[in-house]
Amino acid sequence: MSIHRKLKKEAVRRASTQFLSAERAAEVINRKGVAECIAGVAAYIEEDFRRWNDFDKCARLANHSDVGVIELMPVADATTYAFKYVNGHPGNHRYNLPTVMAFGVLADVATGVPVLVSELTITTAIRTAAMSAVAARALARPDSKTMALIGNGAQSEFQALAFHHLLGVETFHLFDIDAAATDKLVANLDRLGLQSKRFGDTRSAVKGCDIVTTVTADKTNATILTPEMIEPGMHINGVGGDCPGKTELHAGVLRKGPVFCEFEPQSRIEGDMQQMPADFPVTELWQVLTGRVVGRSSADQVTIYDSVGFALEDYSALRYMRDVAAELKMTETISLIPTLADPKNLFGFVAENRGAQGPVLAAVAAAA
Amino acid sequence: MSIHRKLKKEAVRRASTQFLSAERAAEVINRKGVAECIAGVAAYIEEDFRRWNDFDKCARLANHSDVGVIELMPVADATTYAFKYVNGHPGNHRYNLPTVMAFGVLADVATGVPVLVSELTITTAIRTAAMSAVAARALARPDSKTMALIGNGAQSEFQALAFHHLLGVETFHLFDIDAAATDKLVANLDRLGLQSKRFGDTRSAVKGCDIVTTVTADKTNATILTPEMIEPGMHINGVGGDCPGKTELHAGVLRKGPVFCEFEPQSRIEGDMQQMPADFPVTELWQVLTGRVVGRSSADQVTIYDSVGFALEDYSALRYMRDVAAELKMTETISLIPTLADPKNLFGFVAENRGAQGPVLAAVAAAA
Repeated sequence: MSIHRKLKKEAVRRASTQFLSAERAAEVINRKGVAECIAGVAAYIEEDFRRWNDFDKCARLANHSDVGVIELMPVADATTYAFKYVNGHPGNHRYNLPTVMAFGVLADVATGVPVLVSELTITTAIRTAAMSAVAARALARPDSKTMALIGNGAQSEFQALAFHHLLGVETFHLFDIDAAATDKLVANLDRLGLQSKRFGDTRSAVKGCDIVTTVTADKTNATILTPEMIEPGMHINGVGGDCPGKTELHAGVLRKGPVFCEFEPQSRIEGDMQQMPADFPVTELWQVLTGRVVGRSSADQVTIYDSVGFALEDYSALRYMRDVAAELKMTETISLIPTLADPKNLFGFVAENRGAQGPVLAAVAAAA
Repeated sequence: MSIHRKLKKEAVRRASTQFLSAERAAEVINRKGVAECIAGVAAYIEEDFRRWNDFDKCARLANHSDVGVIELMPVADATTYAFKYVNGHPGNHRYNLPTVMAFGVLADVATGVPVLVSELTITTAIRTAAMSAVAARALARPDSKTMALIGNGAQSEFQALAFHHLLGVETFHLFDIDAAATDKLVANLDRLGLQSKRFGDTRSAVKGCDIVTTVTADKTNATILTPEMIEPGMHINGVGGDCPGKTELHAGVLRKGPVFCEFEPQSRIEGDMQQMPADFPVTELWQVLTGRVVGRSSADQVTIYDSVGFALEDYSALRYMRDVAAELKMTETISLIPTLADPKNLFGFVAENRGAQGPVLAAVAAAA
């Protein structure tokens, strides 16, 4: 093969972009098993969080409107760049659309080529549950058996699966202001063989639980949990308070015990801790995962994980989906980047797309 | 049709994402004509820049590595959100890859649905040339007939076409340190019926020209133009200096006349004006396009457009490509967002992708 042909073949390989659609991602997850995928993503997250300082990190970039938010979440290490596009539109049920939809990209830092475009609506549910489990494994009491699930929407089954399989939680106490959402969750948990009990309000659902997960969707400063509901030894997994003006925990709950977060500069703006003064003490979770800081110091302590969702989790989830989709040969090649015979001759690529005497030259002649 | 089926049909329509590949975009541009597309994008840019204050704007978000940069560029008005992914890797010729590759997305602000994913490598070349022409129409002498083109890479033909068709430039003076790049440009301009002369250095290429366009790629603080090259009445179109540490104009050139930019907070960081003090006077171009500020005040004045590329231009270019691709029926539907029967039942979408008794439940049973 001539050097030119070799170079061209190499460029085609390097410029190639794989696409993983929502249907294909669902099929990948289905074939691997949801619990297996949550465990896999959790392992990737732990691996990546343990090398926290390898990453170029920033708070996500948000465009807010009256009805929702659209965000971009980039992160990179020396070899791989990732970003996620994600929206949050609490009123989307009016259009029968999900509240949260997402897709993401992995790119090669050495060349800038986007190597994977993947759906992340389903994958985000997997990664958020995986992240909650990673935090709870580091912070909750190891003998935790019951979890309250406040908010029974799209994320709730994934949280239940994560806590059952990765922490051994056996019983889920359910409450949602939308009874139909709880009906759906009960039915899905029954199919999965997971035990659940439904309650008429948050207070009774939370009572006696080892872990409390809040995962509600309203874009308001809600007060789902109040201080008197919190019992000694509880772990609070606060998932739904994740953007300015959207909180779930009463400020007093955050004062019940040590508070942990993902990336402090982002969490101070977006987390439930947005209610607290700038010097309110918080610990980034990677410090617990690497053993630099102790997580829970006694069985009676209350621990609080103020989750907002950070770009590095999506980096991990995209890596996992890339690997399992490749294993199952489920991606498709898309032509997102042109393959140029001469990279300085972009014009030639356009002109030759329909022959040199085609409309490119015709339009020039007409306009001249 | 039942209300439920109507809602579902509406959700499918709303959640639908169109894809425009690099090949299809080239074909669209070829069929419309390159010059026609540049003129079309220029018209969309002027329309959008004239309603500057309708947009939620920010500087782009860059991840730098030793060999290049990857950037995200979002912008939104009340109805449409857009972002571009773009890299800059001056060493990509080693892999026979373009220096700059890009893709972008249009999304619906009301719901967050990404409605279009489009290649932008080719489209960026069109929009950058269109933006240069929009600025020059507002700033250059109306009788401009000659333009120096310093840097004869992937962007150069598009610049020549833009200035010939939108400003009436007749002759192009060419110089590049890579003689093969100039060979390629001469051949392409010949095919297009455009007159060009090649020169042995920048100084001789620039001499006597009405307009000087610099569009070089090195990620260094280069000094392509020095003050003594600048003649009365010249318009400087500085395209290549567009990120921190990447400049083309000697600071003295920026003091030769009024300097115009796209979005001041971004240009102060990325433009050639990064060399100047924070109070160095600059004018945002939208103010000239809306008639609030005079552009050129005399035939002898030197005008300087310090271009870096701003997200709003990509918003305009994506709008244009969406419209012409729709007209020519050239987009494809991709499944980027799952279509859910019940948006709160994301788990059901996964579980039902291979039947309720499939591996989802099997994996749970095995792990339990």
